[in-house]
Amino acid sequence: MAFGWIDEQAQARRRAGLVRTLRPRPADSPLLDLASNDYLGLAHHPEVTEGAARAARTWGGGATGSRLVTGTTELHAELERELAAFCGFEAALVFSSGYAANLAAVTALGPHGSLIVSDAGNHASLIDGCRLARGATQVVGHGDPEAARKALATHEGTAIVVSDTVFSVDGDQAPLAELAAACREHGAGLVVDDAHGLGVLGDGGRGAPYATGLAGAEDVVVTATLSKSLGSQGGVVLGPARVTGHLVNAARTFIFDTGLAPAAAGAALAALRLLVREPERAARAREVASELHARLTAAGLEAVRPDAAVVSVRAPSPEQAVRWAADCRTAGLAVGCFRPPSVPDGISRLRLTARADLSGAEIERAVRVIGETRP
Amino acid sequence: MAFGWIDEQAQARRRAGLVRTLRPRPADSPLLDLASNDYLGLAHHPEVTEGAARAARTWGGGATGSRLVTGTTELHAELERELAAFCGFEAALVFSSGYAANLAAVTALGPHGSLIVSDAGNHASLIDGCRLARGATQVVGHGDPEAARKALATHEGTAIVVSDTVFSVDGDQAPLAELAAACREHGAGLVVDDAHGLGVLGDGGRGAPYATGLAGAEDVVVTATLSKSLGSQGGVVLGPARVTGHLVNAARTFIFDTGLAPAAAGAALAALRLLVREPERAARAREVASELHARLTAAGLEAVRPDAAVVSVRAPSPEQAVRWAADCRTAGLAVGCFRPPSVPDGISRLRLTARADLSGAEIERAVRVIGETRP
Ligand SMILES: Cc1ncc(COP(=O)(O)O)c(C=O)c1O
Ligand SMILES: Cc1ncc(COP(=O)(O)O)c(C=O)c1O
Repeated sequence: MAFGWIDEQAQARRRAGLVRTLRPRPADSPLLDLASNDYLGLAHHPEVTEGAARAARTWGGGATGSRLVTGTTELHAELERELAAFCGFEAALVFSSGYAANLAAVTALGPHGSLIVSDAGNHASLIDGCRLARGATQVVGHGDPEAARKALATHEGTAIVVSDTVFSVDGDQAPLAELAAACREHGAGLVVDDAHGLGVLGDGGRGAPYATGLAGAEDVVVTATLSKSLGSQGGVVLGPARVTGHLVNAARTFIFDTGLAPAAAGAALAALRLLVREPERAARAREVASELHARLTAAGLEAVRPDAAVVSVRAPSPEQAVRWAADCRTAGLAVGCFRPPSVPDGISRLRLTARADLSGAEIERAVRVIGETRP
Repeated sequence: MAFGWIDEQAQARRRAGLVRTLRPRPADSPLLDLASNDYLGLAHHPEVTEGAARAARTWGGGATGSRLVTGTTELHAELERELAAFCGFEAALVFSSGYAANLAAVTALGPHGSLIVSDAGNHASLIDGCRLARGATQVVGHGDPEAARKALATHEGTAIVVSDTVFSVDGDQAPLAELAAACREHGAGLVVDDAHGLGVLGDGGRGAPYATGLAGAEDVVVTATLSKSLGSQGGVVLGPARVTGHLVNAARTFIFDTGLAPAAAGAALAALRLLVREPERAARAREVASELHARLTAAGLEAVRPDAAVVSVRAPSPEQAVRWAADCRTAGLAVGCFRPPSVPDGISRLRLTARADLSGAEIERAVRVIGETRP
């Protein structure tokens, strides 16, 4: 039978205790949320939800077509202008998701004959971008600019280095300045995914490239998502107008995809304006992360020092990680649980996210629950 | 300089007259719209935009995480249940876009060692799915079930046939019944993209697979977008629960992507309920398409007989297609213009879409403008 082979895989997954199932959440969940990527606590901010509602009313439920046909509204253009200005780049191009933005950037900037140097810890969407690109990919060790430099030295011609700025699993930062230096030595472009940096790092949340002095550089391209700090959905590519113009003409996930829904564009724009007005939100998210880390460490847990708002806590095994997260949930705390095959290094962990709007009491309660439920 | 190579490509594009640029549209565009994929005219329906607004207020501006962490709300589950019931499938899984749904279905159902038989006219997202999948792809002639049968005969083991149901460029239908028969002879699965069929074909818009008696079959998987007939954004995979369960565990564009924004889920759900209540909208979209085709043909234009709501009109050359579309726009009519490299066969055309809410006078006006501006 056509799809019968799936049952065997499902059985193997069940035996290994690795079945994933969806758990629809209610609107009024009583859980304390340390699992979402709503770093600034903006997804439910009334200005953000009103931004979504207003955009839907003005512009419709959907963009109605691809960006090059009917799917570019003045709202999309406004969002692109303000994102570019905020992050310090010449131009911005908005996509239906961060995943689509990453596929676009890597495929369009890694053409036939080029070399793509990719960090071993990169997000799935960057990896898929490498696999779709016509260029040759060389994977280098995680966070190792020397390895990137060596890889670039092996290649004549067009090359890019591709990296997350903040890695989604452990929350550690990439050595951006060193990667940029390696790229410049070899005339290569640097393409970095600031999904977990935008809104958290840099002056007022302008992102990791801005913090590193790379914003607006003609050899730097940044991708990001509108779905984390900006509390919405969508993705963006920021860079020289030359690059965004190229994507308009060459990136398949731009050309053959319906434009971002107006409500999502409206929500992201409202969140961005809030962040401009209240830049302290970014610093607060970082503070919460540091406090979480300090308290977890004081409680004897093995937590990775956070470079942004993600705090990762090691678990002894996949099974124990799953049980630990479930026990936290029973005790009223939602945490993420990353385990094989979703972790590049095979190490299972709880993944906590700091939200700018977590109170001291909430942080304390979270740490207590995690400590009490530890395997 | 890192991205200097882009300038050469841009120059070549300029010389060929093939530069694409974005044209942001205002909310109150005076153009008569025959370019969007809003087949049922629902994107601006007050129930749909109110569905988006209400969902944003209740559930927030974004889903806040991936579907397996915090990104599945009860609204997502409701939408999935109603989509599955409407289209006649056991289960449904919603994605952030139709593009992501196609990448998920093809990669997860075309594993290592399998054969993927793909129609030469398939949408870019299915093609990218084939390229990302670990299985081997064999491209077969457009709309040729005999070729698909022959390809399947060359392979032992797991296989799928992948096809659009209605091809986006010419609007022609795939020979679904014949493809299903070929699949059944060989124990292969059939994976079809009903992006342009959902809401238009089948009883009350239940889609092309439903119309062909394939809905709910254990060897058939359907993908679709929420961005065309349903006036929103997002994608869906419909099929046996075995298949959607497999995607939850194995599809990278499901696991590593933020859940669809609540506003988009709410808009799509409202549109779906409208369609259930007013099933005549689907037939009306088909009628408008037939009328458009009849009038265009009567005016001596070379239009492809529409199987759904897309009406394609041949243009003599890419340059003339671009000018023709621009002249239509000047005369107050928005039409799509498909040309290389976005057309698989190299033939340029105007692409018109029938909307259920076009009046007879609007159809007449559209045909007059197209006739008067023909090259
Ligand atoms: C580092 C990183 N890049 C890209 C993405 C994809 O962004 P989106 O969810 O908007 O598709 C994510 C997570 O979702 C991510 O963590
Ligand atoms: C046939 C087909 N499949 C898939 C898609 C992608 O869907 P979405 O725009 O929701 O990503 C489109 C168009 O956008 C399409 O025409």
